[in-house]
Amino acid sequence: MTRLIGIDPGLRFTGWGIIDVEGNHMRHVASGVIGSDGDESVPHRLCELHGALTALIREYNPQEAAVEETYVNRNGASTLKLGYARGVALLVPAYEGLFVAEYGAKQVKKSVVGTGAATKEQVTLMITRLLPGAIIKKADASDALAVAICHAHHRASHAAYARGRRMA
Amino acid sequence: MTRLIGIDPGLRFTGWGIIDVEGNHMRHVASGVIGSDGDESVPHRLCELHGALTALIREYNPQEAAVEETYVNRNGASTLKLGYARGVALLVPAYEGLFVAEYGAKQVKKSVVGTGAATKEQVTLMITRLLPGAIIKKADASDALAVAICHAHHRASHAAYARGRRMA
Repeated sequence: MTRLIGIDPGLRFTGWGIIDVEGNHMRHVASGVIGSDGDESVPHRLCELHGALTALIREYNPQEAAVEETYVNRNGASTLKLGYARGVALLVPAYEGLFVAEYGAKQVKKSVVGTGAATKEQVTLMITRLLPGAIIKKADASDALAVAICHAHHRASHAAYARGRRMA
Repeated sequence: MTRLIGIDPGLRFTGWGIIDVEGNHMRHVASGVIGSDGDESVPHRLCELHGALTALIREYNPQEAAVEETYVNRNGASTLKLGYARGVALLVPAYEGLFVAEYGAKQVKKSVVGTGAATKEQVTLMITRLLPGAIIKKADASDALAVAICHAHHRASHAAYARGRRMA
């Protein structure tokens, strides 16, 4: 049994979802959204995100992490701010000793729904089917569970890639 | 006497510079560049940057930090990666309890050289004049000292702003 955490980072809202994987079977463990106060300074908000992600990883003790690469179609300043949150979301699990995988949004949708053009509603619907008992309160949590599921599907090839790099 | 750390973040090279400020007098304490191995994974490189910045702050014990906002004129993927490094550069001093200020590249150049259109060479030359004894090995270290000097110039107004926010 392997426990995975999926993270969908954002400076305002960061979704997180933890699943247990055993062979082809997946189980929802916990999921939610980390919010940050827009009135606070950016460094303070990054500290909050860092603290919340660290606490989650220490509480649930996942072995691997998967982080969604949100599609970049906005202006430079917005992209830079998304980068701050994503940097923290990549840093924390690596610092805690987890293997960290990254997946593009289209790759995640394709892995969960079967098409990279799936809507948020389709993703949420599919998540509730793939993870019976999961109660999704916010779309960000659904996206985080989706990236965890995507990683569950891709783990075998990732592991092979890592072995290949070590041998190279 | 106040000790300041200036940081010019980048995923490949992050410049850092520490100065002591007392009234109108400034003194170079230490400066350098944190490099990261491009062959390593991005989460691993962010961990290295996090570890190096944390070690510097704990060794030199600055009271305030200033981080340069590099001008964004590249493609989305590059901007996102710069954002990762900048997120870590904003996070670490805030986590260590320092006040963190942010300055745009033009603001830094104007503060140090007198014009926002100054070249890297002009900035380095001015740094060696403002901080006698500083030996600048790389332009990134020079840029980091420049953002520290910029913060030294702006501290009074920043402090007034912070007091205003606390009272509001």
